[in-house]
Amino acid sequence: MLANDIIFAPSTGMGGAVSIVRVSGNGCLDIVDGLVRLRHGTAASAPGFSLRFGVIDGLDEVLVSIFRAPSSYTGEDMAEISCHASRYIVGELMSRLSEAGARTAEPGEFTRRAFMNGKMDLAQAEAVADIISSTSSAQHRVALNQMKGGFSSELTEIRRQLLELTSLLELELDFSEEDVEFADRAKLQSLLDSSISHCCRLRDSFRAGNALRNGVPVAIIGAPNSGKSTLLNALLGDDRAIVSDIPGTTRDTVEETCVLDGILFRFIDTAGIRSASDEIERLGIERTLRKAGEASVVLGVIDSSTLSSNQDFEAATAEIYKLVDLDSQKLIVLANKVDIGGANKNVIDINNFVLNPDNKPDNVSILVISAKTGQGLEQLRKTLVSASEIASWDGTLVTNARHAQALADTAEALGRVRLGLSNNTPTDLLAEDLRSALSSLGTITGQITTDEVLGEIFGRFCIGK
Amino acid sequence: MLANDIIFAPSTGMGGAVSIVRVSGNGCLDIVDGLVRLRHGTAASAPGFSLRFGVIDGLDEVLVSIFRAPSSYTGEDMAEISCHASRYIVGELMSRLSEAGARTAEPGEFTRRAFMNGKMDLAQAEAVADIISSTSSAQHRVALNQMKGGFSSELTEIRRQLLELTSLLELELDFSEEDVEFADRAKLQSLLDSSISHCCRLRDSFRAGNALRNGVPVAIIGAPNSGKSTLLNALLGDDRAIVSDIPGTTRDTVEETCVLDGILFRFIDTAGIRSASDEIERLGIERTLRKAGEASVVLGVIDSSTLSSNQDFEAATAEIYKLVDLDSQKLIVLANKVDIGGANKNVIDINNFVLNPDNKPDNVSILVISAKTGQGLEQLRKTLVSASEIASWDGTLVTNARHAQALADTAEALGRVRLGLSNNTPTDLLAEDLRSALSSLGTITGQITTDEVLGEIFGRFCIGK
Repeated sequence: MLANDIIFAPSTGMGGAVSIVRVSGNGCLDIVDGLVRLRHGTAASAPGFSLRFGVIDGLDEVLVSIFRAPSSYTGEDMAEISCHASRYIVGELMSRLSEAGARTAEPGEFTRRAFMNGKMDLAQAEAVADIISSTSSAQHRVALNQMKGGFSSELTEIRRQLLELTSLLELELDFSEEDVEFADRAKLQSLLDSSISHCCRLRDSFRAGNALRNGVPVAIIGAPNSGKSTLLNALLGDDRAIVSDIPGTTRDTVEETCVLDGILFRFIDTAGIRSASDEIERLGIERTLRKAGEASVVLGVIDSSTLSSNQDFEAATAEIYKLVDLDSQKLIVLANKVDIGGANKNVIDINNFVLNPDNKPDNVSILVISAKTGQGLEQLRKTLVSASEIASWDGTLVTNARHAQALADTAEALGRVRLGLSNNTPTDLLAEDLRSALSSLGTITGQITTDEVLGEIFGRFCIGK
Repeated sequence: MLANDIIFAPSTGMGGAVSIVRVSGNGCLDIVDGLVRLRHGTAASAPGFSLRFGVIDGLDEVLVSIFRAPSSYTGEDMAEISCHASRYIVGELMSRLSEAGARTAEPGEFTRRAFMNGKMDLAQAEAVADIISSTSSAQHRVALNQMKGGFSSELTEIRRQLLELTSLLELELDFSEEDVEFADRAKLQSLLDSSISHCCRLRDSFRAGNALRNGVPVAIIGAPNSGKSTLLNALLGDDRAIVSDIPGTTRDTVEETCVLDGILFRFIDTAGIRSASDEIERLGIERTLRKAGEASVVLGVIDSSTLSSNQDFEAATAEIYKLVDLDSQKLIVLANKVDIGGANKNVIDINNFVLNPDNKPDNVSILVISAKTGQGLEQLRKTLVSASEIASWDGTLVTNARHAQALADTAEALGRVRLGLSNNTPTDLLAEDLRSALSSLGTITGQITTDEVLGEIFGRFCIGK
């Protein structure tokens, strides 16, 4: 357990005009008074939510925001010192705080204290980090909902059902010596089914939630010179400014992100796929296919200008179908370079062809585009947004792998209870599984947790939060 | 003149846990109320220096600091909205402010408004930018003094003297028709001398002030392999972390900065100097000498291990003396590689030799060092700090070229008045020169200024200040 000592850290990024150094802990306002001469009164005597002008001798003129326990972010007495944004001033201010007996905060330690002091549960605390790192509106909306307790209230509901299950089971336990049939088995069964399905629904939302957080993975596949890179550039378009490489990925494939309609997409531009002429190229193509396999949406690009018959097109799409798992992936076939037209326009009208629904399986859309002129790209963007399944997602999205795992564990333990009920397993064994389910669920909000888990969670936070 | 409309800008750097968006202008608190639902009351009805918790629907939970005209940074009604540090949130917050009718602030526009509203004079406003960019304690101290009005109060004193001069001259003007000898010429003369010497003293401080701001320029010269680069690395030592290349300098010479005893030094490592074997090398050496000529301190490095007699050392130092302007530059001769010892230790005791004061001109120090082992480096650092003349500077330092120029102009105009007095120039011509002196002086604090000058000064500020 961390001590109740006084911590400080800069809470703003470097640069800009203003920097904030945040101080928290019992007695921190006395330290502030030792450092800053306020124009009116003292920090220690000021009520919470006071804002004071002050002077730090030889250093700066500052604004001090004062918060009193428990009405502060951490739940402790706190102050935020707003000074000029100079490395020198911030450095000097921090060394003076250090000399006065405070210490540098660990990453996330302010939020950790907020959690320890009951200001928020663990899922809400984790959402704070998500809020800060949000880059799209959908991602932000989900994190905000979680920070405000939306996810937590669903968990509270599941927990309430599990506690009700527990008391029903304990009732049976009390009467077990009398070998009485369980009074309200139907109710038990119904509560159990409802809890399991709630847990599973939340757990299953993680696929979409993860895509939301890290970007919906979209693979672009197709033969060399089918126009994959031109397509990628066209899609990124004006979003170039916020496009960045995903760090930590291999350079075998190019990954770039952009936000379409508030949703973050992660585009994976793969090497062109063709009959491999040598071993090294074969390995490259294997990697391409593996990367494509991780995508939830695949864009299959065909150079329509090389097609001279319906059969050509059918053959090209069939090649692409082979590379996609249509059970778990969505495929958008793109007949590209329509500005050039088919190799023999009089023989094949690509527009008519591709709109024929008989030629495509489910989970496949076919669009006619020109990455070069932009024709059909607006329709492609809409199709992508709808294929992401995020825009249409209604309800809580689990975006955190730890939460998804805990929900899976909860559902699994409840599954054992259900099996046990039908097998007439002794009630005390069922009660044990139920406790295990409650425990897994409790790790999400932090009712049940370990220092190690907390260290891992808050260690990922930035300094000053 | 800029309009009195409502401006906003982020005032913190990106990253960190918290970002601040600052809003200023008449009516800005109503805009804030339209955007943020405060937990208690409204921003428009809150007194100055209020701190409130609030919610921006669908976006974030924020803290709002409220300031009322004229007790704010700009002198206008102001608010600072402190939100989570996410690009998404800050971007969305700014577009909502924009939709509500506010506009993005120009760089420095908050401080420009503070100047226009009489919250600070121009020299103080310029010091705000200096405070933010300060990287050493000496630099910071001077900027802080200027921001708090130390420099301005000296200017006020000069201005007071000039106004007194003016009224004395006008007195003479009134009586000129009666051809009466000027009543108190001695007083006029004394005021004039005192003003001129005050202006000159301030103007002359610019050499030190400029060094303080941009780093004291120190050239390292010496024959190839005398150990110049090893010396530079040894001096930078633990300060490596804050060492950076000076942008915009040519790559002919390496410039690196470090802070010694609170003073910023800028080291110029030059190409080795030797008899040029070809034209290109000769040009390189010329550049070296030109760079060395710009330095206020020169470190002349000699490889003492190659010396076998006193004559050798004398010859080596004489070579260095030739490259330095001892009237305007300080020279520190460094007998380096003393760990190796003289080529013939029995013949020359370098320690005894170099400490003989008869062998060195004024403005020259001679130190025995080993850049490799660190011997003598502490003494070198002390010698550098004292050679910088900044540590010992007592009084105001002018750090701004614009101010130095204005002071020179003022002194020049006053010089014309002095000359005119001795030449019996008509009093009305003297009065004109005196007005010109007052006008030059007034440009420093901004009593006299143009939109163009203001645009140039505040255009160099960061956004949000």
